[in-house]
Order: sequence, then structure tokens, then C-alpha cells
Amino acid sequence: MSPKTAPVVHSSSSAGTPSSKPGEQADSAAHLAVGGEELAGTDFSHPADRAEHLGQLSLKEQVYVLKHLPADEAAEALAELDSPVASDVLENLDANDAARILAEMSPDDAVDVLDGVDEGHRDALLSNLAPEEALELRALLTFDPDTAAGVMNTEIILIQADMTVDEAIRQIRSDMEDMEMPYYVYVVDAMDILVGVLSLRDLMLTRPGTHIQDVLGKQDLITVVYDADKAEVARLLGHYNFLCLPVVDREGHLMGVVTHDDVIDILQDEASADMLGMVGAGQDEDVDTPWLQSVKLRLPWLVINMLNSTVSALIVYIFEGTIAQMALLAVLMPMVANQAGNTGQQALAVMIRQLATERFDSRKAWTAVLREGKIGLLTGLIVALGAMCGVGLLTRNFQLAGVMGGALLLDMVLGAVAGGSIPLILRALGRDPAQASSIFLTALTDGAGFFIFLGLATLMLL
Amino acid sequence: MSPKTAPVVHSSSSAGTPSSKPGEQADSAAHLAVGGEELAGTDFSHPADRAEHLGQLSLKEQVYVLKHLPADEAAEALAELDSPVASDVLENLDANDAARILAEMSPDDAVDVLDGVDEGHRDALLSNLAPEEALELRALLTFDPDTAAGVMNTEIILIQADMTVDEAIRQIRSDMEDMEMPYYVYVVDAMDILVGVLSLRDLMLTRPGTHIQDVLGKQDLITVVYDADKAEVARLLGHYNFLCLPVVDREGHLMGVVTHDDVIDILQDEASADMLGMVGAGQDEDVDTPWLQSVKLRLPWLVINMLNSTVSALIVYIFEGTIAQMALLAVLMPMVANQAGNTGQQALAVMIRQLATERFDSRKAWTAVLREGKIGLLTGLIVALGAMCGVGLLTRNFQLAGVMGGALLLDMVLGAVAGGSIPLILRALGRDPAQASSIFLTALTDGAGFFIFLGLATLMLL
Repeated sequence: MSPKTAPVVHSSSSAGTPSSKPGEQADSAAHLAVGGEELAGTDFSHPADRAEHLGQLSLKEQVYVLKHLPADEAAEALAELDSPVASDVLENLDANDAARILAEMSPDDAVDVLDGVDEGHRDALLSNLAPEEALELRALLTFDPDTAAGVMNTEIILIQADMTVDEAIRQIRSDMEDMEMPYYVYVVDAMDILVGVLSLRDLMLTRPGTHIQDVLGKQDLITVVYDADKAEVARLLGHYNFLCLPVVDREGHLMGVVTHDDVIDILQDEASADMLGMVGAGQDEDVDTPWLQSVKLRLPWLVINMLNSTVSALIVYIFEGTIAQMALLAVLMPMVANQAGNTGQQALAVMIRQLATERFDSRKAWTAVLREGKIGLLTGLIVALGAMCGVGLLTRNFQLAGVMGGALLLDMVLGAVAGGSIPLILRALGRDPAQASSIFLTALTDGAGFFIFLGLATLMLL
Repeated sequence: MSPKTAPVVHSSSSAGTPSSKPGEQADSAAHLAVGGEELAGTDFSHPADRAEHLGQLSLKEQVYVLKHLPADEAAEALAELDSPVASDVLENLDANDAARILAEMSPDDAVDVLDGVDEGHRDALLSNLAPEEALELRALLTFDPDTAAGVMNTEIILIQADMTVDEAIRQIRSDMEDMEMPYYVYVVDAMDILVGVLSLRDLMLTRPGTHIQDVLGKQDLITVVYDADKAEVARLLGHYNFLCLPVVDREGHLMGVVTHDDVIDILQDEASADMLGMVGAGQDEDVDTPWLQSVKLRLPWLVINMLNSTVSALIVYIFEGTIAQMALLAVLMPMVANQAGNTGQQALAVMIRQLATERFDSRKAWTAVLREGKIGLLTGLIVALGAMCGVGLLTRNFQLAGVMGGALLLDMVLGAVAGGSIPLILRALGRDPAQASSIFLTALTDGAGFFIFLGLATLMLL
């Protein structure tokens, strides 16, 4: 992340109709400026920008704006808002306005918002929708939002394998009018099992009379099962550079697709969850989270960290007599722990990103731990030598210098191996590999560092 | 990141030609199994999977495989390999094979690989290509790989604003045959200035005789300038949910497009760079980085961390006399520093992700620091009260308990505010907001924690 250059987002009116835009833009700005200050340099002509601005208004203003926007624009803006905010807004709209907006949202976006609405209110909202829409949303709401089915889009174009290309194109043209992003069409057999995926490009390049099943040819079909973890879905879509990944049930029936734009959100969310989780902040916290909510999320981990520190403190307490005889040990002791902690965090960061970006391969993972051990050993040797020279020259106590060097080396190797292993151990225990990993690591490098350093000192110096 | 469920990637033969695939697949597997072990449960029918397998072979085997694959398959596999590995392979292929493969790669992928090849060798490779291809690659190679121009694709379909829809579709059909992903077509005026972007969907839904400029209508054009930072480009594309973002020069001439698949790679790279950078690991390290290379990348930061620790140690040294009189202080002292460090890292993680995912807004950023201060104050009060009770009950020294509580509270608030501010300060200094931020933070919370705790103890207890 480098702050050096910023892109210029300019909105230029198109050649043909230069006069039509300014009016339109002023109009949307007027809609959105209700009670809120305009952001310098931002223009609200794109729904994503309008949502960003909308996110900065008060709840009352948001409800007012959405009520008065055309339903399709309100739907787009609501979909772009952060889910908890969007759910609040939806709860505060009256039932008719809410239903009008929900009906215009794509089902996956509607479900995201409805997920945060409390159950009683949600039922009331759904009963205001057309029965078949309500039915679909109810079905989607039963899926775990962290799975493929929880993020999939159900608006897809299905064609039959025995159609011809021109029949297919006719159907696509008619389906396409109310679709968000018809880049692929999905081919099913007579049993509704997914048998192929075609791009519009494939169809446009094929002679009209050809049967769809012959266009499919020797295509490989890559799909995910509906209960796959959404982070895995994102990794797969990135791996294959797909625009969409079909979601199927265990029999191979097509249930929906996960699209590239959802994947970008998933990847950002996962990267945030890992970085925040490592140090015990709430995994979906951001600067807009109410601060008391953040206190609630972080406090349990801070207490665990404090208890860990207490264990390290008890180790120091065992050696209280040693320190009383040689207070200089208390000066050097935190250096050992801090340095090993940093070494371990480097290994931890590499391993967590590895698990986040590549398919898990346990042999490769443990080879990576060995690699961290080697890095810890060499950096440990270099740092320990430096520290020995420094302590030796400053204190003229060469035994103390030896204790410092030995403790640094041992604790840094331990930190490196622990940093590499902790995510793998958490994963093997069925837990999130990142969650609180940095807290556990620090507990280990602190406790072991104090024990090794003060233990060696007690043996060698007194 | 949750390890609970894994997606099933199954490759099913399509309905029409069930007999054609097994042979083809066995064939590719044979190509790729040269000297390497087959991975259980993986099938290599997709280029991305083949590249993943290829990545696990030795350099010699990689060169052998690429030499014997058809040029288009070799090009896809090379594009999917990690760039440093791909550059090595390219350097070891003979010039004719290398040129044959490069000619099949999309220009942005070819440039990624060529970037890592040393300059003399690169010139030799380019001189083996057709002159116009070499010219284009040379031009692309001059751009900073961290900018929009460094990641853009130059294979785009251009149409003139004064064409009719049917003329445009005819041109697209003919251009499309050698394109990777023609979801959008780009409309330019007589001066070659970009005036609009159309999707194939827009064109298919429009009456054939219509002029392109009338289809464009009141469209807004969102573009990035060629020297925009690639992280900003990724953020923008995610913000607008676009498939591609056009890259223009300062006059608005279209230079290329950044596509969604590149954006996924950029986001993963940026998330890794932030997490690794925080703790002073190499920003593009992963488990495949040679370990000596990792030592070289991490050691400077470990040395800086050691120097920081030395400063903290000097602070403790000032109070050596205090500790000699009361060794218990050395027991409690690391708890203060560790707890404040954890508090600060929570704030740090939230702020770094904020900068990575949203457009920068300095007022919002500093409001977020204030928010962290409040969180630090409340969690600090709770933890400090707990620690006071604990120390008071265990030692019956209530003044010591007071010193512990006071130091914890002050250092935790300092940690929270520092964790929130450090990325903003680094950014304001024109540096990467994540780089070594955790190292600086720990230096501060350690040093201040020791000073406040031992200082208060000296004043109150002796």
C-alpha cells in the first residue's frame, strides 16, 4: 500500500449527449445532499459513490433519502451500504417502501441486508413481497452467510443442452433484460444437472444451427458445493481467473453463482478478519463500528492477554531472588522477549497469508515451518552475536554476555518455529488459523524468553 | 478464514462428448508429470492447476515441460506461475522457445515475466519477437510495475463513436477471435480520446441501425490515469464492481485496461504486503521465498527492533537502583508493556485495513484515532482496575497496586492512540502506512510502559 499517487476519477460526459448529464447529476446530488455536507471533489453519479455518501448521513437522513429515490436506485444504494447499516435502514423504512426496494435488489444483496434484520420484522417484510420472491429469499436466508450458498446470486440464465445456438441466443436476449451480469450462460441436461458453462463470446463465435451440447465439447466444469467456505470460493475464483463460479448441490444441480464482485468483497473481508483476528480485535470491526461495540469485542482478548502476561510474570517471580542480586538482568530481559516476539510475528504473518492465498497442502505447510526454523536460527545467530558483543563491551561481564546471546538465540528460534506452527495447530484444531495467534505467540516468546534468560543467569552467574 | 469446509472441485465431462476428455486429460497429465510426483486429488486439465503443479517441479523440469507444451498452453502456464519463478524459467529456455511462448502471452502477463529477466537477456529475447510485439512490450516495460500502466492489458476492442451498432458488432466479432476477455468495448472519438464504454450486453440489446454515440447516452466514464498506484486501482474497481477499468493518459487517450483477475491478485498481494510489512518481513515474501533471501529481508528490521529494545532497556537501566530495592517491579513491568502493545496492535490493525479498503479521508481518519483513544481509555480502565485488585490482594502493597493500575491505564491509552496514529503519520511522511508499524508501536509501548511504571514506582514507593 503506497500513498504516493492517487488515481483521478473523472466523470466526463459522453460525446453524444453532453447536455443530458449535468441535469441528471445535479438531480441526484440534490436527492443525496439532504441535511448532509457535500464531500469535496466527489460526484455522486455512480451508485457506489452515492452509497458512500449515504453511509455518512444519519439514520434518519438515510431513511428519508431512500424513501424518495426511485426504487431501482434505492436498491443499488442499499446494496452498496455496509450490511449492518443497511439492515438498520431497512428496519426503519415503512413496510411498503422496504418491500418496493427489496423487490428491486438482486437476491444475494437482499439476503445480506435481511440477515441483519431481527426475525419478527424480517417476516413482516417478506410477507409484503410477491410470494415467489419471498419464497426465494426465505430459502437463501437459511444458508450460512459464510458459505458459497450464502453469497451466491440466483439470477442466472439457464439453457438446455439440446437447444441450438440461435434458440439459445433468443432466450438469452429475452432473459437478459432484467439481469445484472449475464457474461456466462449455464447449460443443464434434462435432469437439470449442470453440464456446461458458456460465455456470450463462445455463443457469438459459433455457427447459428449448432447444438449447444456440441459447443460444450470437451469442456471441464469447475463448481463449488453450496456449503463450501466462502473464503475457499474466493481463492478458487482467483486461482482460475473466473468471472463467476457455479454453486451446485451434492447431486450437481445448479443453485446459483458466486460473482467476481462478491469475491473482491470476500477477499477484503478475509484479509481484514485475519489481520484483526491475530491481535484479538473483532474480525469485522472497522472505523465505523460503535466504540462500545469494539470494547466488547476486544476486551475478552485483552483479558486473555493479561492472563498470559500473568503466567510470564510468575516465571519472572520464580527468579525474583536472582534479579534482586543483579538488577541488570531486568534491563536485558525484555530485550530477549521483544526480539523473539518480532521474529515470531514475521513467521506468523508469512504463514497466515499462505493459508489465506493457497490451497492447503500439509506437507508444504510443515516444510514452511522448517524454513522458518532455519531463518530463526540464522537471524538468531547474527542478532545474538551482536548482542553478546554489545553486552560484553558495555558491562565487561562476559558470562552475562554469553547468557544474553544464548537466551536470544534459543528464544528467537522458538519464536520462529512457533510463529510458523501456531496457525497450523489452530487450523488442525478446527479453529480460525489467525484468531488470537499473535497473542498466543507473544505469551510463548515472553514466557520462554524470561525462563531461558533468567534460568541461564541463575545457573551461570550466581 | 475458517478451515471447516472445503469446496469440491470436480471436473465432469460434458454431456455431448464424454469420450473426448479422458484422453486429452491423460495427455496433459503425462506432459506435466515429468519427474514430479502427482498431487493426490488434483487434476491438471485447467491451466491454473497445471501451473500450480508446474510450480512444484525443479527448474530443469519446468523448462523441459514448457519446451514440449503447445505454445498457447505454455503461455498460459507461464502466466500463472509466480513471477520470479516464471522469469527464471524464461531465462533458461532457449531463445526460440522463449519467443514462441512470449508471443502467445497477453502483453501484461509477458511484461510481468520479462520484468524479472536481467536486461541483457531481455533485449535478446525481445529481438526474437515480431517487431511490433517487441515494440509494445518495450513500451510496457518502461512503466512502474506498481502503477495502473504496469498491470494494464493492452488487448482491447476499440470502436469509433460514429459507427452503427451493427458495424460495431461486425468489428467486434472479427477482433474477438484473439482476445482473452472482450466483455467491454471501448468507444473513442476522432481524436482517439476515450468517450465511452459499452458492454456486449448493451450492444446486443440495441436496435442494429443505432449510432454508437447515441447508445452511450448519458453514461459516466470512470477511468484511472496511467501512473495511479495499483492498490488504488484495485480499490476503485472493487468500489464500482467493474470488470475492467480503462487506463488513460493525461489527455484522456485510452492506453489499456486493468481487469478483474489482475485486481484479485493485487488485493491479495497488498493484503500480504501490509501484514508482512507491519512486522518487518519482506513485503512479497511467501513460503516459496528462498530462506536466505528471507533472512536478508527480515534482518534489517530485526536489527532496528533490537536497537529500539536497547532504548527501552536504557530506560529500565536508569531505574536499576529502584529495581535493586524492589525486584517485584521487574515481575510486573513486562505485563504493562505487553498489555499496552496488544491494545495498540488492535488499533493498528483496524487503521491499516481502513487505509487499504477505503478512499482516504483525513477527517475520518483522525476521528478514528479519537475512537481508538476512547476504546483504549475504557479497556484500560477495566484492565487497570482488575490488575490493581490482583496486585493488591497478592502483595498487600496497595501503593504498588496503584502504580500498576496507573501505569497500565496510561500506557494502554498511549498504545491505542499510537496504534491509530502511526499508519497516518507514516502515510503523511509519504511512506507505506504498514511498513514496520508494529515494530515502531512496540518500541513506544515498551519504552513508555517501563518509564511510566518505574517512574511512578520510584516516586511513590521508595
